[in-house]
Order: sequence, then structure tokens, then C-alpha cells
Amino acid sequence: MLQAGAKTLSVSRGISLGIRQHCNKTPGRLTGSRGISLVSIRRVWDKTPGQLTVSGAVSGEQLGAKVKVQGWVRSVRAQKANLFLHVNDGSSLQSLQVVASSELNDPLLTFGSAVEDFPFKIKERHSLEYIRQFPHLRCRTNAFSSLLRIRSEATTAFHSYFKENGFVQIHTPVITSNDCEGAGELFQVEPSGPDNEEEENFFSVPAFLSVSGQLHLEVMSGAFSRVYSFGPTFRAENSQSRRHLAEFYMVEAEVSFTQSLEDLTKVMEDMFRSATEHVLAHCAEDVDLFHKHVTPGHRVTVEAMLKKRFPTITYSEAIDILNRSSENFAFPTDWGCDLQTEHEKYLVKHCGNVPVFVTDYPYDLKPFYARDNQDHSEHTAAAVDLLVPGVGELCGGSLREERLDLLRARLEEAGLEDTYSWYLDLRRFGSVPHGGFGLGFERYLQCILGVDNIKDVIPFPRFSHSCLL
Amino acid sequence: MLQAGAKTLSVSRGISLGIRQHCNKTPGRLTGSRGISLVSIRRVWDKTPGQLTVSGAVSGEQLGAKVKVQGWVRSVRAQKANLFLHVNDGSSLQSLQVVASSELNDPLLTFGSAVEDFPFKIKERHSLEYIRQFPHLRCRTNAFSSLLRIRSEATTAFHSYFKENGFVQIHTPVITSNDCEGAGELFQVEPSGPDNEEEENFFSVPAFLSVSGQLHLEVMSGAFSRVYSFGPTFRAENSQSRRHLAEFYMVEAEVSFTQSLEDLTKVMEDMFRSATEHVLAHCAEDVDLFHKHVTPGHRVTVEAMLKKRFPTITYSEAIDILNRSSENFAFPTDWGCDLQTEHEKYLVKHCGNVPVFVTDYPYDLKPFYARDNQDHSEHTAAAVDLLVPGVGELCGGSLREERLDLLRARLEEAGLEDTYSWYLDLRRFGSVPHGGFGLGFERYLQCILGVDNIKDVIPFPRFSHSCLL
Repeated sequence: MLQAGAKTLSVSRGISLGIRQHCNKTPGRLTGSRGISLVSIRRVWDKTPGQLTVSGAVSGEQLGAKVKVQGWVRSVRAQKANLFLHVNDGSSLQSLQVVASSELNDPLLTFGSAVEDFPFKIKERHSLEYIRQFPHLRCRTNAFSSLLRIRSEATTAFHSYFKENGFVQIHTPVITSNDCEGAGELFQVEPSGPDNEEEENFFSVPAFLSVSGQLHLEVMSGAFSRVYSFGPTFRAENSQSRRHLAEFYMVEAEVSFTQSLEDLTKVMEDMFRSATEHVLAHCAEDVDLFHKHVTPGHRVTVEAMLKKRFPTITYSEAIDILNRSSENFAFPTDWGCDLQTEHEKYLVKHCGNVPVFVTDYPYDLKPFYARDNQDHSEHTAAAVDLLVPGVGELCGGSLREERLDLLRARLEEAGLEDTYSWYLDLRRFGSVPHGGFGLGFERYLQCILGVDNIKDVIPFPRFSHSCLL
Repeated sequence: MLQAGAKTLSVSRGISLGIRQHCNKTPGRLTGSRGISLVSIRRVWDKTPGQLTVSGAVSGEQLGAKVKVQGWVRSVRAQKANLFLHVNDGSSLQSLQVVASSELNDPLLTFGSAVEDFPFKIKERHSLEYIRQFPHLRCRTNAFSSLLRIRSEATTAFHSYFKENGFVQIHTPVITSNDCEGAGELFQVEPSGPDNEEEENFFSVPAFLSVSGQLHLEVMSGAFSRVYSFGPTFRAENSQSRRHLAEFYMVEAEVSFTQSLEDLTKVMEDMFRSATEHVLAHCAEDVDLFHKHVTPGHRVTVEAMLKKRFPTITYSEAIDILNRSSENFAFPTDWGCDLQTEHEKYLVKHCGNVPVFVTDYPYDLKPFYARDNQDHSEHTAAAVDLLVPGVGELCGGSLREERLDLLRARLEEAGLEDTYSWYLDLRRFGSVPHGGFGLGFERYLQCILGVDNIKDVIPFPRFSHSCLL
């Protein structure tokens, strides 16, 4: 237990408290409270004591030392002689229980007074939908602050994986004059203001927000064997779905000197596994909150994902599986049709509710850069998707067409030879077999946490008709 | 020395080589060659040997083992009995020298044949300006591949600093309905295509590319003591200057429970120092290339920066220094005028050519969120800039006005009370003293490498009239 003593009380700028650990028992844990901090605790000591995070205090760091802890009050409980405060500073899900003299109690140190308009109530569990309405305050709930710590740690996990495996990080541009996917749903960019309508483009050419850093990464994969990027990408999709955002994060990688799709699926699987193990190890408590309270039972699914190597089926096998099933699909399952989310989810279930690779998609479904398998009756490209439980498509990748003649022919057919002459240059000079993939970072978080709506795993969701803050 | 033997030679997809290290002397180093790889070396062994990067091979890893090395040929020199190849895979500045039987020599394995149109010449040192014209190929030069490795490592360095110091990383949005700086030079975003002119905004409100993640970070600093972001920011500045880009990266941080500007300058200085030491330690060879060939003598400047704590002067002291100098400044130096680059560079020189903090700027020069120092004759705000050699302003920060009444009064005066009612909410609920800063990542790279033009430290520079690729 901790004891607190205070000299000054100034609620307008937070109360000041000195906290001293003076016994070596693990401080009490806070469980169950989902309240919101409203009052800050800070303290100017005469002599500056060691600063300690709540996470450090709760885990028993610097026992016996005089330390300073700063955070927000998450709950207040007054008894005759004592006042119990729970203090949180965002360093962990846990709060620090502070036992103070009851003379510290002040009407302003209750939730009611300072929170007339505050949208969240102490000890009430608000739904993710409800808190989403308050983008500037939702980080003060337990669930969303856990999410943000997990998101931060997962970001670290992906960077670590790539770093440990010799990948060079590239900041691919957000503003681009390319249209990577070859079709639609782009945001265009121009300087704001009334004067600009008449003028020429700021960049002299139409400029868009990037839908993928792939082509820019391919530039780099002519000089580096392994490159990756991690950044925002954009789609002007007029959709309110639980699966789409106008701005979302992608992890993308390109690998040179590939021999087959397996060179890619190995990286995809290792990356998934390494990141997930990292997150489970470093954010155990925060992940538990989701696995216990938000999606009960999801833990079992995540553990099952990590048990075995991911199975691989071809697109043709996938079509067979779908056609043999007794399911009533809304979309057609003929060879040549694109797989829809309902199909993807079925395939995942069929394979035992674990991530599954689907390879060798119909050539005509894939963009110009996908490598031609040059098979015949069923013409395919060396492309691969990774489908995961609950989400469907998590990653998409392909070997890239490195053969100048084949690539040029396909671009000519599409009338894009001039637009992509620089891309053909990459094959003219020092072309080697290579491939890459992209992973939707928010979908990854949905997958491991079991969160249904993509808007609940990103700090500030952007989608059609919504751009709050 | 290394010996090579090859079974097949197929220049269209690169030549295949088996390379075996069979002595324990450090393999020869490549110096001076600035040529470009044009032909790949790859090899399918009957039994897959260990894969080794060029960096690993050159440093003597797995000596005596049968390994596979893949990369691009940077130079070819044929002698009577032997052929000398320098092979690079982007893993380091160094190339691997391969000594092969001269019977391997093939007319296609020279630079001339395959490079008719290739813009870079072997053994010629091209200027950064020249290579900048070829954004899809410049990563194949020594200088720019070194830059990209340094940029990747510096990114890691900043993330590591924040991670080790308990900061939570936040992905602040690129698309925003805020205008953080309160004035101009914004890019606006709308879906492309002819149909959209008549319709309402995609987001129902005008949406812009973010000029700073600060306000979004401030949201988070109501629940986390320490947060940061590292991502792209945007200015529609119609400038071709060596100091500005339309898209650039910023490192931004917010710290809660600050007591004075020193709480911020300490983080800024520690971060700068930690990142720079990391880069110098992890990219020694690549940094040397810049310090020797691009900006001779810059190493001394960098080392001097790290020797002492950074000095701090107030804005008022800075004005005095400028007014006492014999320099002929183009811009006025009266109290109340903003410091220009010429002033900033003079102040840095005056302080011994080391980074210098300038604090307490005139209140009227600073945005609404800067904390009022409530001094009188010379009214200032608790803002700070970090000026560095060669660049001028590298970081800008301030304590944020946490006092609801003062903040509301200032917003009312500017007619922005409604727009920023959510921002006032952050002060209504659980407001604590806090502050933060932003660092221009490209300027940081310019500062430590001595690169004069900002376009030479970013993979794909965007500026007015230019958006290549």
C-alpha cells in the first residue's frame, strides 16, 4: 500500500501530491474501474525526487525511495479516515491506488462536479460505438487507451521484424502522380483557397494521395535486396463498412532475388507470427482486456493461429472448395470470379480457422505488374493473398513481372506504356526476379484483437462523411 | 579473396554464380568505384546453401561455408586469367569482390552493352543535382543508397529514443478538418474524377493534408504522459528553395506535467544527441561517404555539436546579439520581428557553431496554443526553437496554454471558439500543464550530413511544379 501526503490542493491545475512508497508489498491493483481521469496529480517537491511512471510504481520499482508519480484520477472513494484514489498516467492499463488522509477530500475531487458535461461515466462500461463519438476524449477510456498502447507496440513489432531481417525502411511518398492500382477511387490534391481554380496544377501534373507504396518500393528494390514501408494510404471509397477507411496504414515489403511465391509467403508468415508474439508478450494486460471484455474467447483463436504453419491452397483449389460447399453465397464462385469476403471467410473456416494463403489467381484479375505464370487453359498470375479469421483478406502480394518484353506488351495493351516508361526502365537496367506484398495494419489489429469495426483500431478514423478533428 | 565458379550464364535474368569463401582473409574492399549495378548475380544451387548478404560476406561471416550471395554488379575488370566483379546488394556501401575465371567473361557482362541509355557512368562522380533528375534510378548510386540507409537507421534511432523513454507512438491523421497553424498554405483533398465537382464534400466538411499532428497529439496527452508521432506533413508553399518541400517528415512529441520550457528542451536535446550517436555508430561508413566526399570537413561540426550541452538564450537576448553585430541583415531585427534564416544562422555561429535554443518569443508571433508568459512590457509566450548549424530552425515547440480562461479568451478574440470547442474540452476536463515540439526530419538529416539541398535527403521529393513518379 502507498501513503500520500499533500501540501497544496489546486484543482484547476490538478492537485499536487507527494507519494512515498514505504513498504515492500506489491501495491494494490485496480480492477474493474472503467472511469475516466479528470483531475491531474502533480507535485513540485523542494528537492526533485525520482520520477516514476504508474506502470513502474505498480510493478514495485524503486520501493522505499521517494518518488514522484503524476497522472489522472480515475476514481475516488472516501472513507472515514482515508481517501482512496486510483491514478493512471497511460503507461499501463493498471492504475496506482493511493491511500490518502480523508482531509484531502475536496468537493472538486469528485467526478460529479468537474464533469457536468463529461460524456463518460465512472464505472459504466461504454460501447466502442458510443465512445467513438468523442474522438478527442475516447483515449481516456480503458479500452481505447489499451488499444493505443497495443497499436504503438505493434508498430514497433513490425519495424523490429524488418530491421532484424535486413530490410531497409523507405518513406514512400503520400502525394504521387501515379495511380498504382490502375483504377479509381483516388483522392486528388490541390492547394486550397479561392485563387487556385484558374491556375495550373501546383505540381504541374495531377497529384493524388497514394493507394500503395509498391511501385516506389520497386524502384528501391533495384538497389536494395529487401525494402519495406509503413505508412498511411488512401482510398476515396464511398463506403461506411466495418472493413474500410479512407485513410489507413499499410505495411509493404519488396524482396529481390525471389525464386517463387514461397519466398514471399515465408516473409508474410514470419512477419505475422513475429509481430503477434511480440504484441502478446509486451501488451499482455492490454490484449487481455480485449480478449476478456470486448471479444470473449478470441484468445483461443489467436493462439490457434500461431500453432501451425499456415496452409496454402491455389485459387483453383479454393474455387473447388467453394463449389463443393453447401453454403449459399451471394456472389458467384465460377473460375475467374474474384473472391469476396464471404468466400474468404468460408475458406478460412474450411481450413480450420487459421490464416490461409491463396495463390495463383486468374491473370485477368490482377494488375499489370503481377508475374505471368504462362500456364494455359487456366491462365494465372503468381499472386497471393493471406486470408485470416474474422477479417478475410489481410495481405495481398505477387511476384512482379520482371521480364521486359512481357511487361511492355501488357502495358502497351493497356495504353500505359508512356505513363510507366520509368517503370519499364527498372526492367531495362539490372532487372531481377522480385516480389512483394502489402498488409493492412488496421485489419491486422482487428484480427489479433477480435475488434469488429475498423474504426475502433485507429486513433482518428476517416471515412465518407466523417473527418472529425 | 573469394573464388567463384558458375554453371549457367543468363544475362537476361542476371548471371548465376556460386560463390564459396575458402580462406579466412578479409575479402578485398571496393574503394572509389561509383558505378552502377546493371546485371544481377543469382544462383540456384542443387542444395540450397546459406544465404549471405554482401555486408555479411565482406565482414567475414561464415568463412569456409558454402554460401549464396546475390546482388548487382557494380564493376567488371577482365584480366588474362581472371575476371574481377564487384557485387553490391544494398546491405552496405561496400561491395564484394568476386574473382572469377575469365571464361565467365561475356560481352553482355560489361557496362557498355546493357547501358546504352543508362544515365550514370561507371567511375564517374555525378553531382547530387544530376542524379536527382532520375528519381527511379538514383538509389543505385553510392551516395544515394548511403543516404537511404542512413535515413532508415535515423528513423529507427528516433523510434528507439522515444520507446526507451516511455513515449507511446500515435499515428496522427494525414487528412484533417483542422488547420493547426491557423493560416494558409494548405492542400485540400477531394475525390478525383469529373463527377465530383457538383457534389458535396466527400467528408461533408472541407478536408486538408495535415501541417502538424500537434493538436491530435494533445488529445492523446490528456491520457498518456508522453506521446509522439513520426510521419508526413504538408505545406502548399510555392517555393523552390533548398529548405522547403511540399511533403516532409516530422517527429512530434507532447509531454504532460511540464513545469517549464526546460522539460521540453531536455527532451529535444536528449533526442537529438541519442539519435545522432545512434546514426554515427550504426552507419559509420555511409556517414563517412558524406563527410568525406559530399561535405568535406562536416564531421568536425557534428562532433562539436555533441560535445557540450546546448546553450539557451531568450529571444530578447537574441535580438540584442543581432543588433550588436556588424552584419548587414536583409530583414529587420527589431523586438517583435520574427527571426529569419539569416538571423538564425548568425546566432548559431555566434554561439560557437553548435545547436542553440531560443526561448520566450513575442506573444503576438506565436499561435493561439502557445502558453502566455504574462510578462508585461515585452509580452512573450513560452515557446522555444532549436537552431542548428547550416540549417537554422530544426525544432519548434512551446508549452501549451492549459488554462481554460486564457485559452478561451484568445480563441474568442480570433473568432475560433466554435471551431476549437473540442480543443477547449481538453482544458475543461483534466487539464494539466503540458508542452511539445516538432522536429523537421529532413532538416535533421541535412544537419548531420551537411547536405545543402533538402531534396537530396528524401526518397521522392515533392515541391511546386514537381511530383515525379
